[in-house]
Amino acid sequence: MSELRQNPVNEHWVIIAKERAKRPQDFIRTTERVQNSIHECPFEQGKESLTPPEALAYSPDPARKPNTPNWTMRVFANKFPAVAPAAEFVLEREDMYKFGPATGFHEIIAPADHYKHPALLSNEELFLLFKAQKERIMFYKQTPFIRYTQLFYNHGESAGASLAHPHAQFLALPVVSNYVTQELYFEQQYQKKHGTCGHCAMIAAEIKLKKRVIMQNKSFLSTAPFASRNPFEIVIYPLWHTPRYEDANDEQLRDLAQVLKDALLRLHEKLKNPDFNYYTHTVPHHNGNYDYSHWHLKILPRLSTRGGFELATGIVINVVSPEDAAAFLRGERDVEEIQK
Amino acid sequence: MSELRQNPVNEHWVIIAKERAKRPQDFIRTTERVQNSIHECPFEQGKESLTPPEALAYSPDPARKPNTPNWTMRVFANKFPAVAPAAEFVLEREDMYKFGPATGFHEIIAPADHYKHPALLSNEELFLLFKAQKERIMFYKQTPFIRYTQLFYNHGESAGASLAHPHAQFLALPVVSNYVTQELYFEQQYQKKHGTCGHCAMIAAEIKLKKRVIMQNKSFLSTAPFASRNPFEIVIYPLWHTPRYEDANDEQLRDLAQVLKDALLRLHEKLKNPDFNYYTHTVPHHNGNYDYSHWHLKILPRLSTRGGFELATGIVINVVSPEDAAAFLRGERDVEEIQK
Repeated sequence: MSELRQNPVNEHWVIIAKERAKRPQDFIRTTERVQNSIHECPFEQGKESLTPPEALAYSPDPARKPNTPNWTMRVFANKFPAVAPAAEFVLEREDMYKFGPATGFHEIIAPADHYKHPALLSNEELFLLFKAQKERIMFYKQTPFIRYTQLFYNHGESAGASLAHPHAQFLALPVVSNYVTQELYFEQQYQKKHGTCGHCAMIAAEIKLKKRVIMQNKSFLSTAPFASRNPFEIVIYPLWHTPRYEDANDEQLRDLAQVLKDALLRLHEKLKNPDFNYYTHTVPHHNGNYDYSHWHLKILPRLSTRGGFELATGIVINVVSPEDAAAFLRGERDVEEIQK
Repeated sequence: MSELRQNPVNEHWVIIAKERAKRPQDFIRTTERVQNSIHECPFEQGKESLTPPEALAYSPDPARKPNTPNWTMRVFANKFPAVAPAAEFVLEREDMYKFGPATGFHEIIAPADHYKHPALLSNEELFLLFKAQKERIMFYKQTPFIRYTQLFYNHGESAGASLAHPHAQFLALPVVSNYVTQELYFEQQYQKKHGTCGHCAMIAAEIKLKKRVIMQNKSFLSTAPFASRNPFEIVIYPLWHTPRYEDANDEQLRDLAQVLKDALLRLHEKLKNPDFNYYTHTVPHHNGNYDYSHWHLKILPRLSTRGGFELATGIVINVVSPEDAAAFLRGERDVEEIQK
């Protein structure tokens, strides 16, 4: 029989539906990925004038001038931003409704190689991506109306990617993300009730139980979460209690890069290049110390659709158990053994 | 510039992105709908033995025997349920994690005509669907371990429908829907802060402002919500303050049928048969009086996808403003005038 599981931190229910089983090969994409020609790509070395001026770049040459070639990772404003630059964020009101211009900053973080799959970026490239995220957070902490920063990565058309060149996106927003507001509420409740961080408790449980762990190094753990809402969902946690992404040092960000690369490579090889998103959840810039929170990175392969049940209830029916997903991604079971 | 809008009841932010405009014809589906043959359909008159025994049926013949033909609307167990029948719901625990068998009841509510589009069901048929929902709620209120009931409708493959024969689905669940748990929290906060029901305040604001109203009769209002998360999203509210769906009488359920049919027909005709879901949100069966809540029905045309930004933040970028959506659905603006 299917199982109802509760996420112990946010108290959300999910249904793990083994009898609606699909085998991992049923998740393997058969359509071809949309490719943008390198000749038209504005993210290439030597085409720096096609993007807005860079906000940050890493280069092997310490004397490199901004907006010239010879960079490894480059950060610049998105030409088609979800939120647009402004000097402030002012809310208006009509009757009971609050609204305001969608102000903020929307940036691209791009490595140099047009053809490199995001799972095949080197540890060094992923480290620079995470270092850029930290630097941009530090920068936007100086902007008073910015309340939250968000890194995310879209790979593949069904994940929202519109350009073939690998790139992460970074947002500085004047409001706190809806999901982070929710998470903070539940993390605080958990801390009040149990006197400890819910994520730290989960990390300890996962290391003890082993069955959902994918990889661990000295600073990070990757695991298929107990109440996974999606097939082959992976969460990466810092092993030490730490609410703020930007408190990680270079050595820790290198460890993060290693664990992320391991997870993306496993998905890429075993599920044959699925579309996916990954993103970090950290704490807002202002108002409170958030000692009860614990930042993390989530990878969501885009392998499922939502019907009326999921949209109505928020209770997702996940047809692959996280124990099976982890065993499959660790290479301990092959396709035929899953979901029996 | 795009607009950040806040839902005044649940405090969720959404971005209304007019400059990412699409015109309504961009939402018109071009692929053909999957059709199941009437010859293989288990929901037909005369094939009652192909489904589990009926739980309820409406017939013009008061002497009709169960599981025989001559019914207008028939309710029976889903052969492939998301939750399976059991006598109780017992949670287990492993370390910090709670889980239990996915127990409950999953039923189909089907009208007789295989070929009838759900927007073309008669007012009487929709009334019987809503009456069946009320009767099934009353029935499951007698089952102690059932905490919540959910009606939903899937139309079209992208909305999760797998059979062509029109049918609603009804669930009796041992846990409260994640979304309803959230809604109750925010509804209670709103009531505490403002001394009134947030939905009642919104209904009054919408009737005063007019621009997002689609239709109103003596008991119900349909409107494109101020902070719509999806293009052409519609909410139907009872005009009187009422937490519980099952408190509506027959006359009121007939009024609901009229407003729903109006909304579905407008979507069907103006957007050329989009895939959609609709569902009700009402209050749990036990624990509390929920005086601060107000049941409602939501219609979600499946016209948008979620990228990394939406998955990471829960802040959806909606490219059609609800004012434009309402004007278009009311027939006051045609396709070319929208989003200018």
